[in-house]
Amino acid sequence: MPDLRCAGNGILDPVKKHIYIYSPSSAVRDKASFKRGVKRLQTLGYEVEVDADALASHQRFAGDDATRLAAIHRAAASGADVALVSRGGYGLSRILPGINYKAVAKSIGKGTHFVGLSDFTAFQMAVLAKTGAVTWAGPALGCDFGTAAAPDDIMEACFDDLITGQGEGTGWKLPKHAITLIADGASATGAAGQFNIKNAVLWGGNLAMLSSLVGTPYLPVVPGGILFLEDIGEHPYRVERMLTQLLHAGVLAQQKAVIFGQFTGFKAVPHDKGFKLPTVVAWLQSQIKARVLTGLPFGHVATKVLLPVGRQITLAVEGRDAFLLWGHP
Amino acid sequence: MPDLRCAGNGILDPVKKHIYIYSPSSAVRDKASFKRGVKRLQTLGYEVEVDADALASHQRFAGDDATRLAAIHRAAASGADVALVSRGGYGLSRILPGINYKAVAKSIGKGTHFVGLSDFTAFQMAVLAKTGAVTWAGPALGCDFGTAAAPDDIMEACFDDLITGQGEGTGWKLPKHAITLIADGASATGAAGQFNIKNAVLWGGNLAMLSSLVGTPYLPVVPGGILFLEDIGEHPYRVERMLTQLLHAGVLAQQKAVIFGQFTGFKAVPHDKGFKLPTVVAWLQSQIKARVLTGLPFGHVATKVLLPVGRQITLAVEGRDAFLLWGHP
Repeated sequence: MPDLRCAGNGILDPVKKHIYIYSPSSAVRDKASFKRGVKRLQTLGYEVEVDADALASHQRFAGDDATRLAAIHRAAASGADVALVSRGGYGLSRILPGINYKAVAKSIGKGTHFVGLSDFTAFQMAVLAKTGAVTWAGPALGCDFGTAAAPDDIMEACFDDLITGQGEGTGWKLPKHAITLIADGASATGAAGQFNIKNAVLWGGNLAMLSSLVGTPYLPVVPGGILFLEDIGEHPYRVERMLTQLLHAGVLAQQKAVIFGQFTGFKAVPHDKGFKLPTVVAWLQSQIKARVLTGLPFGHVATKVLLPVGRQITLAVEGRDAFLLWGHP
Repeated sequence: MPDLRCAGNGILDPVKKHIYIYSPSSAVRDKASFKRGVKRLQTLGYEVEVDADALASHQRFAGDDATRLAAIHRAAASGADVALVSRGGYGLSRILPGINYKAVAKSIGKGTHFVGLSDFTAFQMAVLAKTGAVTWAGPALGCDFGTAAAPDDIMEACFDDLITGQGEGTGWKLPKHAITLIADGASATGAAGQFNIKNAVLWGGNLAMLSSLVGTPYLPVVPGGILFLEDIGEHPYRVERMLTQLLHAGVLAQQKAVIFGQFTGFKAVPHDKGFKLPTVVAWLQSQIKARVLTGLPFGHVATKVLLPVGRQITLAVEGRDAFLLWGHP
């Protein structure tokens, strides 16, 4: 296994890296977190540029549709090393037809990494579908760098690895129930607990956003891919319903692996009577041939890794150790 | 305008009409409502047959997948005048591939009316997509006939009209803001407040279920249709996101009219800052040429009409009076 860099051994480049903050989704209400986030990035040694409309507000949105589209296009034209969303929320779905995808892909080609999560998944999927360009599933400014307590070490180390070009991959410990799943599936597919899937495109993000794109021109077609998923505030029965849509639409049958990140912020109810998230994961494994893994440290949680959406990677599993490896750019 | 029969002038047939109660979705937890519902239907003069597994329970479901599929197929084989779901909830999505659609369509051809709502929308859409057969959006046993207070008059009258074959259509008063929408759209499409759309297929139901079928083989393709929608517990931003999926998938551009039923049970939050359901309706009207109407008495509310899903109907609007007319079978 290569030396994974998310443990934070990055040495800062003598030239300050440039981060562009913009708001394509919901309006920023927690301005204290926003300010703390900017300050934190500056403390880490980055040059931070804030978009003129980063704090705009129109209804729930960070400005009306034209304002948010213009912010995205300014981020693409910024020449920054990272274009980082201030927050998620809701707002990208309805402006997907107005995005200049060529301009976004061009800026990615020149070295700008688009980073974000949650609602941002809509943008990432659309960019992948329309151009094949790679974006990054990762933190948002306010909730990750602007926390009242110190930001998460691993998240910051992974972010630093991305911005300094030192990231080669990421790894995590599979939960014990995931091992069971692998073992269960393994009778059909090979040795349990040890396998590699090479040269597969990693893609995914927020499940609600992914399922909301099925049947539209903004969901990429990724045969033989590795799909990762996370969500917040969605009861397991809704998670299953969203997975069912991906299943019945034929998306899951095309995948080589499906990796569950963190599903948080939902409430079990007495009506569930044993219907839990692991029930859903086990059901999914019974429906598809793809490897189903769990425990990926990504989602609406503090400890999150950064993941290249749209990039060819290798998934390697050895016992309870799982790795997503993408090597150097 | 014809004499609308939902006001309850039905005279009962001397032969008792036969109602078959079954549970294709969530487990029945409120057994008191279930019993009251059965009794109420008997009091109304119907012969009520209860499926052997109507009260089955497995996790959240009214029995495991095989049990619920068997219940659906028993309902189809029952020869009843009406096959009525005990309740909605969740459970149909994942068993859609296992339904014998030919058998369901055959029973519909022989006179069985399948009635239900909410999760049942998945069944209705799949039946329409696979066979073109007509089902009915309408009440469920527990929450409509089994209420602790007296069941709703209009709902019962409409149900009686269906079962006695006397229903010709339904009508409602458009809310004032809907009139504004019609007037706004009318500059492009003709006289405001008075129009007919003839020979268009009525379809729709629960919006969450509809959007969860986009991209799958279970969403019917209905060019030139009249689409009605309702939902419960979905914030307007989620309603908009679901509509956006239907929009970007090209479903809404095919419709001649989109009719909003009742959207209930969600909580506005301070973050909304003026983003309300009417905001979403106005936004939708700005995106499509179809007529957008509101106020249809259908959804998770007591006063609900019955609507033939998949049937050719006429939509007639005169001032604030709207009618959905389907004539006699």
